[in-house]
Amino acid sequence: MAAHSLDALNPAFQNVQYAVRGELAIKAELLRDKLKEPAHGLPFDKVISSNIGNPQQKGLDQPPITFTRQVAALMEWPELAKLAPDVFPADVLERAEELRREIGSIGAYSHSQARDGYPADPATIFLTGGASAGVSLLINMLINTPKAGILIPIPQYPLYTASLAQHQGVPIPYYLDEPNGWSTSVASIEDALADARKEGVIPKGLVVINPGNPTGALLDEATQEALVRLCEANGLVLLADEVYQDNLHRRATHPFTSFKKIVSRLDSRVPLVSFHSISKGVSGECGRRGGYFECTNFTEEVIALLYKMVSVGLCPPLAGQIGVDSMVRPPQPGSPSYALWKQETDTIHAALAQRTSIMSARLNALPGVSCVDSPGALYLYPRIRLSEKARKAAEEEGKEPDALYALRLLDATGICVVPGSGFGQREGEWHYRLTCLCPGVEEYVGKLEKFHLEWVGKYGVE
Amino acid sequence: MAAHSLDALNPAFQNVQYAVRGELAIKAELLRDKLKEPAHGLPFDKVISSNIGNPQQKGLDQPPITFTRQVAALMEWPELAKLAPDVFPADVLERAEELRREIGSIGAYSHSQARDGYPADPATIFLTGGASAGVSLLINMLINTPKAGILIPIPQYPLYTASLAQHQGVPIPYYLDEPNGWSTSVASIEDALADARKEGVIPKGLVVINPGNPTGALLDEATQEALVRLCEANGLVLLADEVYQDNLHRRATHPFTSFKKIVSRLDSRVPLVSFHSISKGVSGECGRRGGYFECTNFTEEVIALLYKMVSVGLCPPLAGQIGVDSMVRPPQPGSPSYALWKQETDTIHAALAQRTSIMSARLNALPGVSCVDSPGALYLYPRIRLSEKARKAAEEEGKEPDALYALRLLDATGICVVPGSGFGQREGEWHYRLTCLCPGVEEYVGKLEKFHLEWVGKYGVE
Repeated sequence: MAAHSLDALNPAFQNVQYAVRGELAIKAELLRDKLKEPAHGLPFDKVISSNIGNPQQKGLDQPPITFTRQVAALMEWPELAKLAPDVFPADVLERAEELRREIGSIGAYSHSQARDGYPADPATIFLTGGASAGVSLLINMLINTPKAGILIPIPQYPLYTASLAQHQGVPIPYYLDEPNGWSTSVASIEDALADARKEGVIPKGLVVINPGNPTGALLDEATQEALVRLCEANGLVLLADEVYQDNLHRRATHPFTSFKKIVSRLDSRVPLVSFHSISKGVSGECGRRGGYFECTNFTEEVIALLYKMVSVGLCPPLAGQIGVDSMVRPPQPGSPSYALWKQETDTIHAALAQRTSIMSARLNALPGVSCVDSPGALYLYPRIRLSEKARKAAEEEGKEPDALYALRLLDATGICVVPGSGFGQREGEWHYRLTCLCPGVEEYVGKLEKFHLEWVGKYGVE
Repeated sequence: MAAHSLDALNPAFQNVQYAVRGELAIKAELLRDKLKEPAHGLPFDKVISSNIGNPQQKGLDQPPITFTRQVAALMEWPELAKLAPDVFPADVLERAEELRREIGSIGAYSHSQARDGYPADPATIFLTGGASAGVSLLINMLINTPKAGILIPIPQYPLYTASLAQHQGVPIPYYLDEPNGWSTSVASIEDALADARKEGVIPKGLVVINPGNPTGALLDEATQEALVRLCEANGLVLLADEVYQDNLHRRATHPFTSFKKIVSRLDSRVPLVSFHSISKGVSGECGRRGGYFECTNFTEEVIALLYKMVSVGLCPPLAGQIGVDSMVRPPQPGSPSYALWKQETDTIHAALAQRTSIMSARLNALPGVSCVDSPGALYLYPRIRLSEKARKAAEEEGKEPDALYALRLLDATGICVVPGSGFGQREGEWHYRLTCLCPGVEEYVGKLEKFHLEWVGKYGVE
């Protein structure tokens, strides 16, 4: 029947690629099921999903912040405040009571906009179910013709290319500078703009991911100022993905500065959209689906247009909105929940910084591997040199060489990473992205090392 | 700056209309804020949001099902099972423990597909954040050219026209038969198909809302069979919006039958998508954002395409998924939570049936008003005859006549309804949709009656 065969469907869907949950992730799930069989015959006893920044998943088990969960439990079943008042700290009871007064039942649709509680004009802040929904909406809004394009960093988080494919816009790639710690070069963006215009593409926006995904790089303020000026000069909307702003491993040397701050300081009129999420940071509440985007320098009529569009989707989940509240208003010094909150968040920050540092050092020591020691986010993005023999083996299997590497790694160790071809890389270079969330870093890196040395033994180095 | 002025944005966005949260709903919020001022000068002391099926909103306060909320509270903060075990029934503790074993932390991303627990192939069931996200995705997928169209009932829930506008497909309207209780006529669909083809539109799918929104009508099985045959004959995907399947006021005479059952019984190969949601029914958990769609007779490659697309959005909220679990696996007779669950759901069913019946009778008694007594869903959709004088007054204000009626109703009573022009109606007819969720039905209907009689006093009847 023609109505539901692939060639009768929206061709844009077929151009969408999202490697983070692609072939390897699907195979990892099959292996996880297979491990449940008594005689599974696999050379490992657990699958480690390092393909996705999902801190609370089984096997990683980063604990949630207790304050957030206590407030959320009271919102779910308010009777608890009467039936078991002694198990909740006073500030948790107060916060839940305050939220109940404000929003009523979490089973009711809410507004799609922030109503208050933020140090900004609430009419310009839209609550979302994680950052992804907002990014997709903004890209959909900006693409007004099939020649409209958006500048995206390479490597990038594939949400951007996937959204552009779905909404039929043109990705305009600009390359990050790996030898300089994955830094962003304004000149390379200007080159990309010139090339795009030569091909008739109309640039509409600039995506900046800070801290970077998959790179973990942090922008310095001078670069941020230059990027704002570049957007002004070229009439671009600045899309600032800042979801990793609280995942900082070396705050003294690599601090985070928001683009809102830069735009405000420069008194710039550049239209800016800042994305944030509760899925990352110390919150790690991926499953709640909470986040927001803030629009700066947008006209009232465009804000009204956005409001109308988000209204069609009714509202983001209330559990996510409670998570946003807890993220932007954590317990303060002197409150009953502060000590535990401080201890929990310190532990998360320290573990991530330590694992990132150990893993990058150990990866760098391997033959044919170089790895920037990320100062932020949840990932490393090591470069792997793959020999001609390895590249031929991949060609014979109809795969990219880094995809073959990742597949063999999964088969041998149960570790699921995402090949660099899913994020983008320069022609002839190969990488993979892995998360630094896994506990038992010794065993984990040990498996990566053993596999890599066996690979090199079989295929040699470049 | 051209980049963010309206005329530089996706023109499809400007064609999107969503009256349920449109001008009247925005004005209702402003009035609600104004009521907080001591000397507000308004002729009412509360705003009643009858524009949206949101049972747990403030002022309506339909209580949530206790079982659902107890399980959800334990999922939020599992320590509660140890700290306050006595406040939870045994089956609640068991269910939470079972879900924790299955999904781990609700702070982790889950699969986007159902994994098990359903009497169907889980690979064909996609969990969503309410039904709307699934509807939008399916429409986006089916629209493969700007000439592709989808048959939609008139009146319809405006999600369908909004999604078609956003994804640039053609709505093909077919009219429901108001004098016959808003029934669906296969002949009128065939006429609509013929008209569309004459204009070069390529029909791709048929939307059926059963029970109807805004009409509350229920399809009989003979009509359902004929609709399946019509889809077969015309190569259409059947999109069955069944989110009100448990809101039935007269089950004996007006039962609900799913299209899955009809398609199975006919052994039909028609591709069917069935949408369901926890926002309606006795659950009424709008704010959790939970639902699912099930694909029947889809090829594996189309299922894989859908899986890829939902993966880009990562996963629906876990709070919504817990709500789906509770909806499809409620407490059973003999379990500790059953008696309370039965009492709570019986109360909700009885209140809705009673209010719907009282309201439709009272509305029918008004001059110039006729109202089908809905056997299902949460709404009434009365027809109002508006005089030439009223139509002229509306024209002078640049509004549709029913929009003027709804605006004056809001100004006079604080009751917010949605004019029929937001759902669609025959040329020269006027309606509005209101929910039957409001407690204090005497006072509520009294206000509607008083306003209508004053309106008729001023403008006369048609």
